[in-house]
Amino acid sequence: MESEKKHLRSVHPEDSVIKVENREIGGLNFQIIAGPCSIENEEQIFETAKAVKASGATMIRGGAFKPRTSPYAFQGLHEEGIRLLVEAKKITGLPIVSEVMDINHIPVFENVDVIQVGARNMQNFELLKELGHTKKPILLKRGLANTIEELLMSAEYIMAGGNDKVIFCERGIRTFETMTRNTLDISAVILLKKISHLPVIVDPSHAAGRKDLIEPLSLAAIVTGADGLIVEVHNCPEKALSDKDQQLTPKEFEEFMGKINPQIEFIGKSI
Amino acid sequence: MESEKKHLRSVHPEDSVIKVENREIGGLNFQIIAGPCSIENEEQIFETAKAVKASGATMIRGGAFKPRTSPYAFQGLHEEGIRLLVEAKKITGLPIVSEVMDINHIPVFENVDVIQVGARNMQNFELLKELGHTKKPILLKRGLANTIEELLMSAEYIMAGGNDKVIFCERGIRTFETMTRNTLDISAVILLKKISHLPVIVDPSHAAGRKDLIEPLSLAAIVTGADGLIVEVHNCPEKALSDKDQQLTPKEFEEFMGKINPQIEFIGKSI
Amino acid sequence: MESEKKHLRSVHPEDSVIKVENREIGGLNFQIIAGPCSIENEEQIFETAKAVKASGATMIRGGAFKPRTSPYAFQGLHEEGIRLLVEAKKITGLPIVSEVMDINHIPVFENVDVIQVGARNMQNFELLKELGHTKKPILLKRGLANTIEELLMSAEYIMAGGNDKVIFCERGIRTFETMTRNTLDISAVILLKKISHLPVIVDPSHAAGRKDLIEPLSLAAIVTGADGLIVEVHNCPEKALSDKDQQLTPKEFEEFMGKINPQIEFIGKSI
Amino acid sequence: MESEKKHLRSVHPEDSVIKVENREIGGLNFQIIAGPCSIENEEQIFETAKAVKASGATMIRGGAFKPRTSPYAFQGLHEEGIRLLVEAKKITGLPIVSEVMDINHIPVFENVDVIQVGARNMQNFELLKELGHTKKPILLKRGLANTIEELLMSAEYIMAGGNDKVIFCERGIRTFETMTRNTLDISAVILLKKISHLPVIVDPSHAAGRKDLIEPLSLAAIVTGADGLIVEVHNCPEKALSDKDQQLTPKEFEEFMGKINPQIEFIGKSI
Repeated sequence: MESEKKHLRSVHPEDSVIKVENREIGGLNFQIIAGPCSIENEEQIFETAKAVKASGATMIRGGAFKPRTSPYAFQGLHEEGIRLLVEAKKITGLPIVSEVMDINHIPVFENVDVIQVGARNMQNFELLKELGHTKKPILLKRGLANTIEELLMSAEYIMAGGNDKVIFCERGIRTFETMTRNTLDISAVILLKKISHLPVIVDPSHAAGRKDLIEPLSLAAIVTGADGLIVEVHNCPEKALSDKDQQLTPKEFEEFMGKINPQIEFIGKSI
Repeated sequence: MESEKKHLRSVHPEDSVIKVENREIGGLNFQIIAGPCSIENEEQIFETAKAVKASGATMIRGGAFKPRTSPYAFQGLHEEGIRLLVEAKKITGLPIVSEVMDINHIPVFENVDVIQVGARNMQNFELLKELGHTKKPILLKRGLANTIEELLMSAEYIMAGGNDKVIFCERGIRTFETMTRNTLDISAVILLKKISHLPVIVDPSHAAGRKDLIEPLSLAAIVTGADGLIVEVHNCPEKALSDKDQQLTPKEFEEFMGKINPQIEFIGKSI
Repeated sequence: MESEKKHLRSVHPEDSVIKVENREIGGLNFQIIAGPCSIENEEQIFETAKAVKASGATMIRGGAFKPRTSPYAFQGLHEEGIRLLVEAKKITGLPIVSEVMDINHIPVFENVDVIQVGARNMQNFELLKELGHTKKPILLKRGLANTIEELLMSAEYIMAGGNDKVIFCERGIRTFETMTRNTLDISAVILLKKISHLPVIVDPSHAAGRKDLIEPLSLAAIVTGADGLIVEVHNCPEKALSDKDQQLTPKEFEEFMGKINPQIEFIGKSI
Repeated sequence: MESEKKHLRSVHPEDSVIKVENREIGGLNFQIIAGPCSIENEEQIFETAKAVKASGATMIRGGAFKPRTSPYAFQGLHEEGIRLLVEAKKITGLPIVSEVMDINHIPVFENVDVIQVGARNMQNFELLKELGHTKKPILLKRGLANTIEELLMSAEYIMAGGNDKVIFCERGIRTFETMTRNTLDISAVILLKKISHLPVIVDPSHAAGRKDLIEPLSLAAIVTGADGLIVEVHNCPEKALSDKDQQLTPKEFEEFMGKINPQIEFIGKSI
């Protein structure tokens, strides 16, 4: 059993390429998933979605169910948030990505193209098992203190149920360093691609927790073999209900795209 | 709102004492929760339950839903496990503790006295919210890389829903040290008791991951103000389906109780 | 060679008992080393020394060479500090402990009874080798991110040179937790005593970095087998040139001694 | 004083460019420092030096004083090692880099071009102060559990003494992840360049502890703004007296150079 685990490259030597609408994650494709931390209202998500599309984003992200440390913090718009995100898809034509926090909410994600499992739920095994019975691509984030081996085994939970469409997301681990919110483990990107055939996305926004590191960390992700980035963009970050310090403005995102595009082309991939 | 958080000792200066059947957790009481990692079969759980009761345990633990890193590892007996544990309660007269892994399983825990939230689910906020709507005492384990502040806020999720019966469990955090499975953060016990009025239980079995540290770590827990211990005991550890190396035999548990009892009395508490 | 390492209990089954003047470290003895973080002036060190002796301290500590993160912070009184500490020894009759930071300073420590190697120098191998050629007892502090195995091997560096008088000091390790300066690894005390025959001292002042944890962490050290404590006391902490928040006043130290003494007696040791 | 620290970019807005013989570290230059972990014998260091020069290395590294966890492990050839390295400089014409472990050895490094301070000595403040009185460029490695702020302050120790020629080296920090020897903190490269005007070198060999990560981690270093790399190469790694698993063969180094060169050129720097 051990040697036949479904996530292993030894079992499936070629890169897995996962179709999401008319996009492909993996191989020589590079995806830019962008959008706000939380979906807050119609104007915010529509404006942000249109702006990131204009700058070249390939998918839209937005949180409707928000895992917040405090019960008194903004928890997301829930079903209404998903509804607005689906509208944003209609407007832009781009596939959408959003985080699920509980088995019972899965039906709400029927029209969501990629379902995200957040860092805090990486070992919510019941949720993983249930997602293994869906046909949706799953963006599986690494937990704050989980090893690469544990991340691989969480993917295996989904695959064991019959759903092969798992995409890893490295988003930083918890260390003693305090200048950054987390420490991006760039070696993990390399090792995940080496050990597994599944695609890997990097989240520089949560890894750093500060805007000024997003561009250079993204460049590092590109050259170490990542298949895409997930970046937080908000039409007006200073009014954001969560993650104020790490969301780019549409203008900053445009400049960011201008900086990373040549590097993506240089390594022979394309957005 | 911040200054009125329900878990704060500043809001509720006295120790919370939580009733569980005819037992009380908190104050001058000291609880010994003992039993196997996983409930494996009738003979195993009944024998172990009778043995730990004979040595002075005050509650029985046993896992029916097991969070395992690998989907191919033993996942527990589920409903049948809970049924056997409820039988063990009838035989011994002791209250029972077991871990819930998903909202949808909560009804299965109707006859379980204390519901445990495992380390991996400490920030499964949907589960916490739902447990806040039950009237069951909740044993809330600290996550492997969660701060004390985050643990306090996870308790607040439960309390915000109306359930004040939260018991903290310190079970070790992830560090670079490899001689122990985790590093028991004994300072956390002190700080939790200082900041909050809620009781604190220590789990030396998971903290160390090795038998030989259980007794001294338990002594450390007693003198730093813990309100009890949760210890893994198996009638035949070498045949255990999980956590072989850290489960005591009934004989070892008896000796363990003989060693810790005088220390509990010395500080003026009683089992 | 591996199986014959000098620090191993398998090579030397009995506890090593290290003589320091008329005191013994190890066995059924319990040492209380107390004094200021830094020696600042005559009045400060003499008053503090007399006060801690009056409350039952068995050795005096005081830093003359201070490892400070910033080159612009107070660096200690150097030779003059050692001279004042030796005076304090004459006044109180108690042995003295102070930290060496460089090979070339070793001669200055001629009249110091126990030479401390600080956490930042735990793997300053040239210093360890040189101390191996002295006959002084060495208090070897664990580095902030060093494993237990590495600490044992640093002791071996000293012992390999011919000096068997090594005393370990656990003083907390660096983790992601921010409520405490470091995380006291109480399991390390247990494992060091188990693997090695050398004595172990616990430093609750640096582990916690805050006064209110010193007493309970000291109780934890006592019951897990530590052979003593090293505690920071200052005659006037608010005026201290370093470590203001973690130094006890003489009055607080007196109360502290009143709390820990019964526990030391209870386990059958004596100061 | 705080706002005038010598390492701050706010005090010295331009990049510092440090001259080493006819090479420059910083600015648009990119250095490749290559050579064995330890200098073992004439044949080994001469062959390796000639091979790495042929592939484009700009400086030669080699350890003569080796910080080893165990006192019974190979400790280096000491003065004889330095003598062989100086010979290798004559043969290749390339500047040489070697680690100093103690103040008293500094005179031995008279003909060494760059003096390295190892991770374990990053807070050996006496050594830093003394190096501040030399005129040699200092390659200052980050400690295994030191923060970026602490690394900056250790540079300040050297600069406060009058030596402005400090080069940072990020070489991985200690985390819970076990697939790599350490975790390369790529964000640290970005932050060091942002906060300070001093150059930054990345050591992918020690960060990963395994050959297969050296190339991708080097690419990440290049795109995040590092001013060079220090890579372990051995003419026959399987016979190496230290760090067998992480040293490249001359052939592997040649391929490595072929892979990283285009990326260096792409960002507008040159070797």
